[in-house]
Amino acid sequence: MSTSEGLLAGLGQAIRELRTERNISQERLGLDSGVHRNYIGGIERGERQPTLTTIAVLAETLSIRPSELIRRAEAKPGDL
Amino acid sequence: MSTSEGLLAGLGQAIRELRTERNISQERLGLDSGVHRNYIGGIERGERQPTLTTIAVLAETLSIRPSELIRRAEAKPGDL
Repeated sequence: MSTSEGLLAGLGQAIRELRTERNISQERLGLDSGVHRNYIGGIERGERQPTLTTIAVLAETLSIRPSELIRRAEAKPGDL
Repeated sequence: MSTSEGLLAGLGQAIRELRTERNISQERLGLDSGVHRNYIGGIERGERQPTLTTIAVLAETLSIRPSELIRRAEAKPGDL
């Protein structure tokens, strides 16, 4: 698995983890961020290629800095 | 200016700074990363919406972790 594929998978895991920690549904995160819930599902499964702006919007909605979100993505097993 | 627009501008500044510190041309960065040099120019000017994968590829080529690149983007004046 390439680094970037692992990072996408890690990002999905990190977002799902933060979202569930905050007890927010995909639908709620979608409404609060303006990102469609189906797209959020795709990101969480590592199937989508989010832009920096989408990452920043989701990070802001989850009350985390984009760099910290990416740091968590890097730390996920998917990045090995 | 919204946070995400500032972050895009900051990313461009951070990439340009790292590239020039390493004395690498846009053309060289393009050849080494597989990202077209014109697209790199657009990213450096904050005019493009790079995906996480593009960010990760450029970060790897610049020998920096994606999270550290985003952290530098956050620290740029463009993010104010």
